[in-house]
Amino acid sequence: MTANPKYRLFDLGTNPELTEAIAKKLKTPVAQVEMQTFADNEIYERIVDSVRGIDVYVVQPISYPVNDNFIKLMIFIDAAKRTSAKSINVIIPYLGYARSDRKARSREPIVARLLANMLESQGVKRVMTMDLHTSQVQGFFDIPVDHLIAMPAQAKFYEDQGLTGSDVVVVASGPSTLKLVQKLAEVLEAQWAIVDQDRDPRVQTAVTGNVAGKYAIILDDIIDTGDTMLKAIIAVKKAGATTIDALATHGVLSGQAGENLQASDVDRVIVTDTVPIPAEKRFDKLTVISTADLFAEAIEQVIAHKSMAKVLLSPDQREAIE
Amino acid sequence: MTANPKYRLFDLGTNPELTEAIAKKLKTPVAQVEMQTFADNEIYERIVDSVRGIDVYVVQPISYPVNDNFIKLMIFIDAAKRTSAKSINVIIPYLGYARSDRKARSREPIVARLLANMLESQGVKRVMTMDLHTSQVQGFFDIPVDHLIAMPAQAKFYEDQGLTGSDVVVVASGPSTLKLVQKLAEVLEAQWAIVDQDRDPRVQTAVTGNVAGKYAIILDDIIDTGDTMLKAIIAVKKAGATTIDALATHGVLSGQAGENLQASDVDRVIVTDTVPIPAEKRFDKLTVISTADLFAEAIEQVIAHKSMAKVLLSPDQREAIE
Amino acid sequence: MTANPKYRLFDLGTNPELTEAIAKKLKTPVAQVEMQTFADNEIYERIVDSVRGIDVYVVQPISYPVNDNFIKLMIFIDAAKRTSAKSINVIIPYLGYARSDRKARSREPIVARLLANMLESQGVKRVMTMDLHTSQVQGFFDIPVDHLIAMPAQAKFYEDQGLTGSDVVVVASGPSTLKLVQKLAEVLEAQWAIVDQDRDPRVQTAVTGNVAGKYAIILDDIIDTGDTMLKAIIAVKKAGATTIDALATHGVLSGQAGENLQASDVDRVIVTDTVPIPAEKRFDKLTVISTADLFAEAIEQVIAHKSMAKVLLSPDQREAIE
Amino acid sequence: MTANPKYRLFDLGTNPELTEAIAKKLKTPVAQVEMQTFADNEIYERIVDSVRGIDVYVVQPISYPVNDNFIKLMIFIDAAKRTSAKSINVIIPYLGYARSDRKARSREPIVARLLANMLESQGVKRVMTMDLHTSQVQGFFDIPVDHLIAMPAQAKFYEDQGLTGSDVVVVASGPSTLKLVQKLAEVLEAQWAIVDQDRDPRVQTAVTGNVAGKYAIILDDIIDTGDTMLKAIIAVKKAGATTIDALATHGVLSGQAGENLQASDVDRVIVTDTVPIPAEKRFDKLTVISTADLFAEAIEQVIAHKSMAKVLLSPDQREAIE
Amino acid sequence: MTANPKYRLFDLGTNPELTEAIAKKLKTPVAQVEMQTFADNEIYERIVDSVRGIDVYVVQPISYPVNDNFIKLMIFIDAAKRTSAKSINVIIPYLGYARSDRKARSREPIVARLLANMLESQGVKRVMTMDLHTSQVQGFFDIPVDHLIAMPAQAKFYEDQGLTGSDVVVVASGPSTLKLVQKLAEVLEAQWAIVDQDRDPRVQTAVTGNVAGKYAIILDDIIDTGDTMLKAIIAVKKAGATTIDALATHGVLSGQAGENLQASDVDRVIVTDTVPIPAEKRFDKLTVISTADLFAEAIEQVIAHKSMAKVLLSPDQREAIE
Amino acid sequence: MTANPKYRLFDLGTNPELTEAIAKKLKTPVAQVEMQTFADNEIYERIVDSVRGIDVYVVQPISYPVNDNFIKLMIFIDAAKRTSAKSINVIIPYLGYARSDRKARSREPIVARLLANMLESQGVKRVMTMDLHTSQVQGFFDIPVDHLIAMPAQAKFYEDQGLTGSDVVVVASGPSTLKLVQKLAEVLEAQWAIVDQDRDPRVQTAVTGNVAGKYAIILDDIIDTGDTMLKAIIAVKKAGATTIDALATHGVLSGQAGENLQASDVDRVIVTDTVPIPAEKRFDKLTVISTADLFAEAIEQVIAHKSMAKVLLSPDQREAIE
Repeated sequence: MTANPKYRLFDLGTNPELTEAIAKKLKTPVAQVEMQTFADNEIYERIVDSVRGIDVYVVQPISYPVNDNFIKLMIFIDAAKRTSAKSINVIIPYLGYARSDRKARSREPIVARLLANMLESQGVKRVMTMDLHTSQVQGFFDIPVDHLIAMPAQAKFYEDQGLTGSDVVVVASGPSTLKLVQKLAEVLEAQWAIVDQDRDPRVQTAVTGNVAGKYAIILDDIIDTGDTMLKAIIAVKKAGATTIDALATHGVLSGQAGENLQASDVDRVIVTDTVPIPAEKRFDKLTVISTADLFAEAIEQVIAHKSMAKVLLSPDQREAIE
Repeated sequence: MTANPKYRLFDLGTNPELTEAIAKKLKTPVAQVEMQTFADNEIYERIVDSVRGIDVYVVQPISYPVNDNFIKLMIFIDAAKRTSAKSINVIIPYLGYARSDRKARSREPIVARLLANMLESQGVKRVMTMDLHTSQVQGFFDIPVDHLIAMPAQAKFYEDQGLTGSDVVVVASGPSTLKLVQKLAEVLEAQWAIVDQDRDPRVQTAVTGNVAGKYAIILDDIIDTGDTMLKAIIAVKKAGATTIDALATHGVLSGQAGENLQASDVDRVIVTDTVPIPAEKRFDKLTVISTADLFAEAIEQVIAHKSMAKVLLSPDQREAIE
Repeated sequence: MTANPKYRLFDLGTNPELTEAIAKKLKTPVAQVEMQTFADNEIYERIVDSVRGIDVYVVQPISYPVNDNFIKLMIFIDAAKRTSAKSINVIIPYLGYARSDRKARSREPIVARLLANMLESQGVKRVMTMDLHTSQVQGFFDIPVDHLIAMPAQAKFYEDQGLTGSDVVVVASGPSTLKLVQKLAEVLEAQWAIVDQDRDPRVQTAVTGNVAGKYAIILDDIIDTGDTMLKAIIAVKKAGATTIDALATHGVLSGQAGENLQASDVDRVIVTDTVPIPAEKRFDKLTVISTADLFAEAIEQVIAHKSMAKVLLSPDQREAIE
Repeated sequence: MTANPKYRLFDLGTNPELTEAIAKKLKTPVAQVEMQTFADNEIYERIVDSVRGIDVYVVQPISYPVNDNFIKLMIFIDAAKRTSAKSINVIIPYLGYARSDRKARSREPIVARLLANMLESQGVKRVMTMDLHTSQVQGFFDIPVDHLIAMPAQAKFYEDQGLTGSDVVVVASGPSTLKLVQKLAEVLEAQWAIVDQDRDPRVQTAVTGNVAGKYAIILDDIIDTGDTMLKAIIAVKKAGATTIDALATHGVLSGQAGENLQASDVDRVIVTDTVPIPAEKRFDKLTVISTADLFAEAIEQVIAHKSMAKVLLSPDQREAIE
Repeated sequence: MTANPKYRLFDLGTNPELTEAIAKKLKTPVAQVEMQTFADNEIYERIVDSVRGIDVYVVQPISYPVNDNFIKLMIFIDAAKRTSAKSINVIIPYLGYARSDRKARSREPIVARLLANMLESQGVKRVMTMDLHTSQVQGFFDIPVDHLIAMPAQAKFYEDQGLTGSDVVVVASGPSTLKLVQKLAEVLEAQWAIVDQDRDPRVQTAVTGNVAGKYAIILDDIIDTGDTMLKAIIAVKKAGATTIDALATHGVLSGQAGENLQASDVDRVIVTDTVPIPAEKRFDKLTVISTADLFAEAIEQVIAHKSMAKVLLSPDQREAIE
Repeated sequence: MTANPKYRLFDLGTNPELTEAIAKKLKTPVAQVEMQTFADNEIYERIVDSVRGIDVYVVQPISYPVNDNFIKLMIFIDAAKRTSAKSINVIIPYLGYARSDRKARSREPIVARLLANMLESQGVKRVMTMDLHTSQVQGFFDIPVDHLIAMPAQAKFYEDQGLTGSDVVVVASGPSTLKLVQKLAEVLEAQWAIVDQDRDPRVQTAVTGNVAGKYAIILDDIIDTGDTMLKAIIAVKKAGATTIDALATHGVLSGQAGENLQASDVDRVIVTDTVPIPAEKRFDKLTVISTADLFAEAIEQVIAHKSMAKVLLSPDQREAIE
């Protein structure tokens, strides 16, 4: 009789490449879920491998189609709970609806909190995620949240190419990313600037800070429809940047985002693999950085009951160390 | 300053015809929700009319696409809760996933309970629904469930056409509907029979009970892919029924169900409007009975704090009265 | 200093023979509870053996007197929780009130859900039970339910006596057991039939299906007052069966059930030991099959964190394997 | 169409005389519950009168048989909740198990808290009770507890008979009632004394304080088996009291309590009607004071949203006022 | 017998001037709480006026001493709950600990969520507050949060003095206030700029944007120790502003904040009365704007079940209207 | 790579001497918490040592300043929970607010239950405490409470000095301590007496029982302002005791308690170290007994999953053993 494994890593079919990469790094197989979608969109799931008394880890980004993917996750959790899993640990590389994190107007919902409630009320023990739109979303959960950041991988990407120093400028596409921009600028020993999305770059300068003659890296947490990024690209170009990179963690790339970016003045679009990008959505200027090592390392620390500090470097801590 | 209304009835766009019909009967307008689906399928909702201190009723079948429609409902609930609605009453004419009501095999989920949990944990005060796949699903909720039945409308439909008495036979498509079949047979003073889905009607008789020379009404709670019903039609035809009706509350009609039924030996397919049936899914043999009167009457009773007995006749009670 | 045991198995005095048989199979002693019932029926319990940090298993059928036995269980749970048991696992061979699983009429309770709530809210981790009246009652719980079935033991009983094949007919006493009947018939390669409880067997045939000249096994999940079974016996006898067995999992045998069955045309009454049957309730035609092996095996799987599939064969699964 | 009543008062058959007396005082009828106890002790309840949107008040002492009576109450609550009662207010004149209010030894339960949890988790809005064994039990609930005291009725009883002043001594049967004794003594302007239950009155004096030649009123919250009271009677008699009354709120009178008290040196045994006393348990020396006025007045205050201060006089407050 | 009031407004002694001003505007008296602080800092509270069935509103800023003030609020809530208040509505003009809204480093708490949990778990129905440090803190609550903003009062203050147009510049003291700064600038038709707190203004310019020769309004949500504001004042002065106002909603003014600001190059320090400022903390340059009208208006809307839109103008909405 | 420790013991700075003594006995270091109190009294905490997957024990008396100390504990719990501690075990040697354990008057809170709720709702697994004001407070918790008693240490203290037998009298300062007094008297084979706090000892004897010529030990659970104890000292002195000790578990010693006791007729004041006593509060007559051994032993038993019986001797049990 073989011993039970210490834990099982599951994939729900949304981003199998990422899960496979994490599994490979962890030297564990991906456990099987029998899954079927009926004609009326009802999802059937059945866990194939026994998980009684076993810690369950499941990787499931809440990306397109977000509602199906969220319910897929909830159904998996229900099945795992009912069959006596020891604990259910949910890895959500990209948390859809995270931008619905406050009531901007009366009578709006706060969907990110709603998702947190649904996950928690079904007995999830831990959520691991990356670059939440605002870090306050951590506080929407009462369970432990391991909030990873892509910056170590992004900084490494630029350092490897020697793109550091005062000829580089990191640009915030709006006020909400300014803090992150200042941090990355510090790491790269670069300058920073900010785009005012409310100004029309064709009639006035929309960039505060100096980008003329510099290598500009426009940073955002997410590229969804690409509108914000495209506006920033126009402004930065107008303001005289020599080269322009669009850098983001989550490459949601909805609708015509890919086509529009490819057609723009941007030189490169650099996102991570938290959101799966199907072949038909890929375009020449796109580069994808993998987060598999970060997630694998984080899962290893969780399993070993070791501190996440090494992996979970917040900008503040990074500053302290470097 | 106008007084607040006593309650507001909302529609979330899934079955607007039914909601309009209910609203008309209740002589109340349908209240507005600003709604948008983004490219990544994220749903944005904002309640337009103030609901502070007001009882909210919302009509939303969990039909195709079930996951989107369920999340749409949850987001509405979150918005209503945060803006201080007095109570949130959810009318779910058709509850998708209701067939996932037990673990048939190890490591399966019970999705109907999962949905019940999510609704309850967000503060829903009452659920009104119709012809749950099994009536035990009522017990998945801890909040009041007003469980309506379509049988009064169905019986009336046949009585109006004089289709009663011993020349009529109500046929169960399998053991799980036998109880309902016996009740309807009793109301119509008809016979009953049952189809054994495991026997091949081409090589042996698959009907237990006498249908030869009779007007057969095959009853089920739901027609989804239509496979169960089609098997029953073949068996009943083989067993010599002169006319065959397929009768069900919920016309889910997934995939090729409509085409297949139209091409079969059935004479009529009679469903209700709990599930919206788009024009392209309609077919000649299809008849739709409206449940709007039943729902409107039930809502009236709730608002008046009156007993549901008149509307909410369970088969047992109906038997007692008639 | 001796090491703590991995788990402790407790009995609360309701069905000590079953607990002893399970304990023997598990090679573990039955742990002690000091128990006393005061003159006003208040129950005093004190756990004698320390259970700090230990997994607790307690066997307690909710059989006559059901309310006392349920409170006895709840008090035990409270004591175990307060003294820091690692987990509380409740084995309820027979769950009283399980037939109160839906509102059949307005203003009725759903007592099975009420019991589930009370058990869960006090921190029970797992429920193990057998042949619930409807399998949907599993969904009344949010904690894992290990739902065992007696059919393996029942089928073995008949196979050992060579009572299989087309001369045997398994008879449903009503529509709600038809599914189980079809399964057992399949396992025994026998025929099936169904009794219509609403027809008077003295004036018309009340059996649908052929039982004449056959060995009839009337199956139900429970024999309580015996009325349903007695009606079925009369109908099956009238319809010409040569031999009649009454087969059920739970032998509640309330009131005059035993006397009436003994005096009827039944040849044998075969129940299991999920409900204790005191000597004064036993009668000549009664045979009791033990479920101790099934429960012991299930507990072993739970402790070993192994799949319940071997033990917890649902009819569907059994079909797949055999 | 008649208007709904503002509230309904229910009785569950345990102490119908008290409920009737309360109802009479409130000028409201007692609402009906259809109730049946099956042979296996399962209880069936169905609320006859509609309670949708209505405040429900139910009177149910948790007296002999305590477990049946508690489950009876829980089932009623479940039915009322599921049929949309506006609120459920539970009047428990005597709360059985209230003496199980702490762990006196390791591995004991705290049953009073368990009952509180079960009541609260099913949605009870308010508990009204009288003379809890310790007033800390109020804190076992998170919902409002209207804790009435019988002392106003008891004091009135003695004042009406002129039994006040320094010739009267109120005697505590043990340390736990000493506080109440001092309060009653103060109200009656009487002396107080205390019995040491651990001393044998035949060999040494067991009364601290002077009772010789006085009219002694031995006070306790409850007379259950009567042992404590009987010991106190012997001690007080031995110490020279001329007349002895045994005074208690709850006349549980288990086992031979009545016979033993009748045969003792006590002159009168005075209890209230919180616990129903069947004819066969009554004895010559027994006097019953009614609490119906207190409960009716308290319910009136609740309904009128008025302060309970008038009714709910704690000993401390009484002191302040008088 | 006088009718119960519809609601009662309570003050807990922390900011009585604000409560009095709100009460005056609402034309309601301030209801009484008997309060005492014992030598060991234990707080005793007793609600003097009956609140049975009455909506309770209580004003309590969580300002210095924050822990005492928070516990004071919790104790009040407990008392109100236990005495059957109809609902408990908590007005927290300033929410201490709101800056602890995320884990900036490993093994930190999120205290704002902790406070939200404690408030909610005791049954608070609604929180009304003003200018939370981040608006995401709304999502820490599952109950309705009426999130007011001081901007209408602040904008009016400047418009009344004619301080609008391109000679005015609104300055962000850091990236986190940039959004608010841009909104206020828009309302005042002014310019905006931002201070980089990491640069030393003595050796390099620390202001991005043009302030030279302008009237500068440095905006922040809170002035606590004043360090951030003082740095910004130095930078803005160095960059050539002619006049400098320090504008903030919450004047916490800890430690030497007042002295330091008075001694700085700032011309005026303008805060609101959400935090009480004792006489000894006031200084010449300080101006206090009252929020009483905003809170009173908001409470009126809540009581009338009217939309908060008029009062609760978020910057986004304001933009839409103006 | 070093293995994780089995558990970590934390101190929050309120009674570091006690924690150090416990740690020394347990041969474990005291784990570090970075802590800071800001000018507005907000507390910042950060756990320095990783506690992922580790059982956390934290010692924190809720003594002066009680509100700060309670919030300090809650913040620690939040941090430990969010960083995935395996379990959080809270050792509260002295539980402030424990005397607020019932509603003595209308519209009062029950603060002890409020604290219990707040602790439980944040996920505390176990509370260990000592000599609660009433043992019913155990029932305010639903989690395990290890309720230690100081009596073993107190009894040993007197036995070591030979102060036992009939020349010693243990005196209750009021009715609520009478039970404890009788127990200690039994252990010391001494007499007992009781003081009536309502009588003025200058004009009448306020002691019931004989203290003349004896060594009197006045026992209470707590000395707070000292008023109760001082009254008792006067009464006992007046009644002729030769020597007087004031004995209590919790030496809160608020306000002038120390000065007043020093100036009184008491000979010795003997308290334990559950509450830290700063140097400036100490006085000549004061003796402090350490409880570190009791707490350390109890923690050892918890960790070893052994019964607390040895340590957690309730008076009843002690009686049984001795």
